[in-house]
Amino acid sequence: MTRLLGEIAAVGTDPGRGGYTRPVFSTAELDLRSWFIDQAERRSLGVETDRNGIIWAWWNPTDLPLHDAVVTGSHLDSVPGGGAFDGPLGVASALVAVDQLRQRDTTPQRPLGIAVFPEEEGSRFGLACLGSGLLTGAVSAERAARLTDVDGNTFADLAAGQGLDPAFLGRDDEMLRRIGRFVELHVEQGRGLVDLHRPVAIGASIVSHGRWRLSVTGQGNHAGTTLMSDRQDPMVAAAQIVVAVRDAALAEPDARATVGRLVAIPGGTNVIASRVDIGLDVRHPDDAVTAALVGRIADRAQEIATVEGCRATLTEESLSPTVHFDPTLRNELAATLPDAPILDTGAGHDAGVLAAHVPTAMLFVRNPTGISHSPAEHVEDRDAEAGAAALARVLERLLVI
Amino acid sequence: MTRLLGEIAAVGTDPGRGGYTRPVFSTAELDLRSWFIDQAERRSLGVETDRNGIIWAWWNPTDLPLHDAVVTGSHLDSVPGGGAFDGPLGVASALVAVDQLRQRDTTPQRPLGIAVFPEEEGSRFGLACLGSGLLTGAVSAERAARLTDVDGNTFADLAAGQGLDPAFLGRDDEMLRRIGRFVELHVEQGRGLVDLHRPVAIGASIVSHGRWRLSVTGQGNHAGTTLMSDRQDPMVAAAQIVVAVRDAALAEPDARATVGRLVAIPGGTNVIASRVDIGLDVRHPDDAVTAALVGRIADRAQEIATVEGCRATLTEESLSPTVHFDPTLRNELAATLPDAPILDTGAGHDAGVLAAHVPTAMLFVRNPTGISHSPAEHVEDRDAEAGAAALARVLERLLVI
Repeated sequence: MTRLLGEIAAVGTDPGRGGYTRPVFSTAELDLRSWFIDQAERRSLGVETDRNGIIWAWWNPTDLPLHDAVVTGSHLDSVPGGGAFDGPLGVASALVAVDQLRQRDTTPQRPLGIAVFPEEEGSRFGLACLGSGLLTGAVSAERAARLTDVDGNTFADLAAGQGLDPAFLGRDDEMLRRIGRFVELHVEQGRGLVDLHRPVAIGASIVSHGRWRLSVTGQGNHAGTTLMSDRQDPMVAAAQIVVAVRDAALAEPDARATVGRLVAIPGGTNVIASRVDIGLDVRHPDDAVTAALVGRIADRAQEIATVEGCRATLTEESLSPTVHFDPTLRNELAATLPDAPILDTGAGHDAGVLAAHVPTAMLFVRNPTGISHSPAEHVEDRDAEAGAAALARVLERLLVI
Repeated sequence: MTRLLGEIAAVGTDPGRGGYTRPVFSTAELDLRSWFIDQAERRSLGVETDRNGIIWAWWNPTDLPLHDAVVTGSHLDSVPGGGAFDGPLGVASALVAVDQLRQRDTTPQRPLGIAVFPEEEGSRFGLACLGSGLLTGAVSAERAARLTDVDGNTFADLAAGQGLDPAFLGRDDEMLRRIGRFVELHVEQGRGLVDLHRPVAIGASIVSHGRWRLSVTGQGNHAGTTLMSDRQDPMVAAAQIVVAVRDAALAEPDARATVGRLVAIPGGTNVIASRVDIGLDVRHPDDAVTAALVGRIADRAQEIATVEGCRATLTEESLSPTVHFDPTLRNELAATLPDAPILDTGAGHDAGVLAAHVPTAMLFVRNPTGISHSPAEHVEDRDAEAGAAALARVLERLLVI
């Protein structure tokens, strides 16, 4: 594990933000994809990239039909200034698990697949779990093709640049039918395992979460010549909305609401903005509470905007209801890993998207800082080894029973 | 005027923001520089680009020594999503004025220069009036060379790419000695002329203004997994600071304080930011009041940050004291244009930088919207003609007496 992760430790480092910036189809993420393909080929796995840009590496020593496979994997893209483990830990653990199964002379009764999903973070095109969303049809090909990055590139154009045909993006029933069960290993994005003094946990659910864009429009003008009393400044309205978002979430038990991204347009220091776009992330275990909380935030935003002579509009960018992982599969994992606690997570994953179509489970590996989407994210070497070993044991059970 | 401005109407249009985005040394600004050089050469003016990237076009029909010249001009760069007139109006009016002086068979007693200053807006490198600042030594070559744009390019590297030698940036006494008097024509960035029902005004002063960066640092983390009560979110602190900036300016008569730019780092929707950089613009006619107001804002920012578990630090990026234009030169303009009112402005200009070295004056042309640094900025054709005619009359007087 340490050696494998060491091979990619220099790819996509971000000297400005610290940590790693590996947006999908960037040089860094493409280098990681090449690295994965090379690692898979060294292990004589059958590698293919599907029409949605998902890489599949198949271990199928007895040449069984690609059907009812056990699939594991994760993603290689990162948020801006993210950690080394969010995504790559699951991919590297899958490779190590194959090595361990071979060392034990496991004879799989069904194929094993390792999947690498593109744009899990949504940090380039704004839509998290885009690869698994396309595969399952949760995201339509039309919507995906039109998504643009900050430089105005469409997903369709960038996918075409990677040899994908935009006309063939979208739900892939043939590929979906191959997957019998899916298990994703991921670094924990909280302090659950730290507090329980355990290295590995089994996932129970992903709480409801979504992303919205709150656009606040006012009147752009010159910062030097416009009287304070004459202004319709969307930045002043947006600032009050950011505080209102926090206050609304504080007042709702178990809710989380975050503004991690705020873009002023045009964005000059000597220019009163004409528009401010607020990126809003809201999560709660109860889908109805999430919806009600977002509704309250939208109402409050409109009130604030009106007082400032501005206008606020809310657009939903993505919304994932709470996902409860398959109880039968979870019991299989619990039987294999009797010491592993069962934890919920507030973070979204490709496993959450696949869970609507195939029995799905997750493993979490301890993060001593509890901090995620930050250079401070961490996994100790011995916990990474424990995670890969736990994944190998789980896969072995699922492959042979 | 209309024809000249029409030639550049398609250069650097910004479909996203509206209006024009023409940062210094961008393709758009370079196209405008080429256009100006072509226009100057068509008029048989002597064109040179100096070691700070300022373009000079000299009308000197009797081949007088380049000394005690009358210089006019402005800039061709824009803020992001700016209007068509801020900068180009002064440059185009200068070309038209030369045409009119020739039609009148004016025989200049001293040379006339037209100057085009780079990076007046500071929208690429964060330091307004960079070209005139380098020329006069107000900005050191070392500081300018180190300035970086949002993509990490240094000013030195981009200047070198334009054929300038970074080793020769900086104060240019020989060029300064050529300038006897400087007159800049500019679109008005407020409603002074609209309210007075006049097309052209004479500038009296530029009120004190400056830019600061307020960096708020907290703890980056995952938006889904971090409890609201565990957060040290610099965005929430920054938002309260934005409101505090507005409140502080509202409480100080004649003050203006603006946050037009706010950058969250790393800037992912599903990431609690680790740092937020606030661009702060503060202006007041009394330099001491500007300083005191910024001090109060900094104190309040630190209080807010502390409550949120964050830290706020203030860095001065530029500070220009109030500039009173040369009274003798202003009286010459007033004698030439007896109907023109005398106005102050809250906007910075290269004329304000040159005023510390040579007698300097400004002309303002009516902007019917009063809106500036926005696509809504406007000048009616007949006012643009009136401005160029007024500039021609002023230049004629200064060239022949």
